[in-house]
Amino acid sequence: MKNYKFTVKYDGTRYYGWQRQPERNTVQGKLEEVLCRLCGVPTEIIGAGRTDAGVHAEAMIANAELDTELSVNEIRDYMNRYLPDDIAVTGVSEASPRFHARYNAIGKTYRYTVFTGEVKPVFGKRYMTVIDDKPDVGIMKEAAKLLVGKHDFRNFCANPKMKKSTVREIYSIDIKQKGDMITFIFRGNGFLQNMVRIAVGALLEAGCKRCGIPHIERALSSGERIKAGPTAPPQGLCLVKVDYF
Amino acid sequence: MKNYKFTVKYDGTRYYGWQRQPERNTVQGKLEEVLCRLCGVPTEIIGAGRTDAGVHAEAMIANAELDTELSVNEIRDYMNRYLPDDIAVTGVSEASPRFHARYNAIGKTYRYTVFTGEVKPVFGKRYMTVIDDKPDVGIMKEAAKLLVGKHDFRNFCANPKMKKSTVREIYSIDIKQKGDMITFIFRGNGFLQNMVRIAVGALLEAGCKRCGIPHIERALSSGERIKAGPTAPPQGLCLVKVDYF
Repeated sequence: MKNYKFTVKYDGTRYYGWQRQPERNTVQGKLEEVLCRLCGVPTEIIGAGRTDAGVHAEAMIANAELDTELSVNEIRDYMNRYLPDDIAVTGVSEASPRFHARYNAIGKTYRYTVFTGEVKPVFGKRYMTVIDDKPDVGIMKEAAKLLVGKHDFRNFCANPKMKKSTVREIYSIDIKQKGDMITFIFRGNGFLQNMVRIAVGALLEAGCKRCGIPHIERALSSGERIKAGPTAPPQGLCLVKVDYF
Repeated sequence: MKNYKFTVKYDGTRYYGWQRQPERNTVQGKLEEVLCRLCGVPTEIIGAGRTDAGVHAEAMIANAELDTELSVNEIRDYMNRYLPDDIAVTGVSEASPRFHARYNAIGKTYRYTVFTGEVKPVFGKRYMTVIDDKPDVGIMKEAAKLLVGKHDFRNFCANPKMKKSTVREIYSIDIKQKGDMITFIFRGNGFLQNMVRIAVGALLEAGCKRCGIPHIERALSSGERIKAGPTAPPQGLCLVKVDYF
């Protein structure tokens, strides 16, 4: 048995997210089916995180222990032969026996894409969220500064009964406007369930002047249980990168 | 009645090309249905060219004469409300009564995108042609130089019985490689049926060393009736721009 590291790209449109679920199409489930076929035994693959239903990944990192004679490129090609068209393994390498894709991850980068044009988009609609408003990017940049740093993000978490720590550190939030598109790049040491989508929802509320910056401050620092913002839809979100030492 | 100029973006995947055909989904057909609904009378829309089945457009130009009280932005929004998701009118403006989208076009730009990666693409598959080879871009650039200029392109035309002139001028062919993608940008005064796809097919043959540059020279200049190259598939092709004085 050797431990392998996988880089996986997927279009999440058709999937109920990363995590295996009985009777449902999930990315982990599809990968495990193919690995089981390759190894002849049930095989678990561990992802760096669990993307939600409809969320995409350019480079999810995962690991699995396999007993196989195949080379790393042969494993990759075998998997791509049997995976559906919207999931691809872009890299396989041998990893240390102790490598764990989730526990060893020290940072993640997510991108959220919003389309604000007056005319609906035709290309790449599956990878962006279309909104009717034209949010003020300057205001959103100001509001984003509040979120950067180490905070208790429990008001930015979909799970209100989260028992573990809800403290996370956001290293940076870059917001860029190019034509009709606004992209938000979040870098942090980890993200709670729906955290990026709630943060984008709160920033859009601020940018569209439907809530003020004080609301975000209160959601971040006070002990109150309030919803920081509406959860932005999944299709605009993409996991771009996972960092390890 | 006023004459209007339309800029139209479409994902050609689901369509039998631009040109209206009975009982078939075409882009012109869809646009005319919506214009007929808007004006209450059958209305013809004239495109700058006729893209093939499966070919996309970022900015097809078209014109139509309409009798309507709506402003240009109202016409645009009305059309986008009733058009399917994969066709969008990105601009409408009033044009001179003599403006004709096809006759007045003085140049067109097409982009052809080829994916050469070892791992299949996940995003944007609908807009590229996946090939197994790794063509030599240097050789293709050399071969492309032969095509640039004014030539009789009858061996680069899908219609062997074309009665009108098959002389066209290609202003430039830019070939760029970026990671796993190769893009070909063709600019010219006009293109015959399938001309870009046959030219790309011939360049790929040369780049993959399946045919030599002499074959392209012969296809261009001799009186022989030979096929210049295999016709590259439609999904990699996109009409990018149409020029007018």
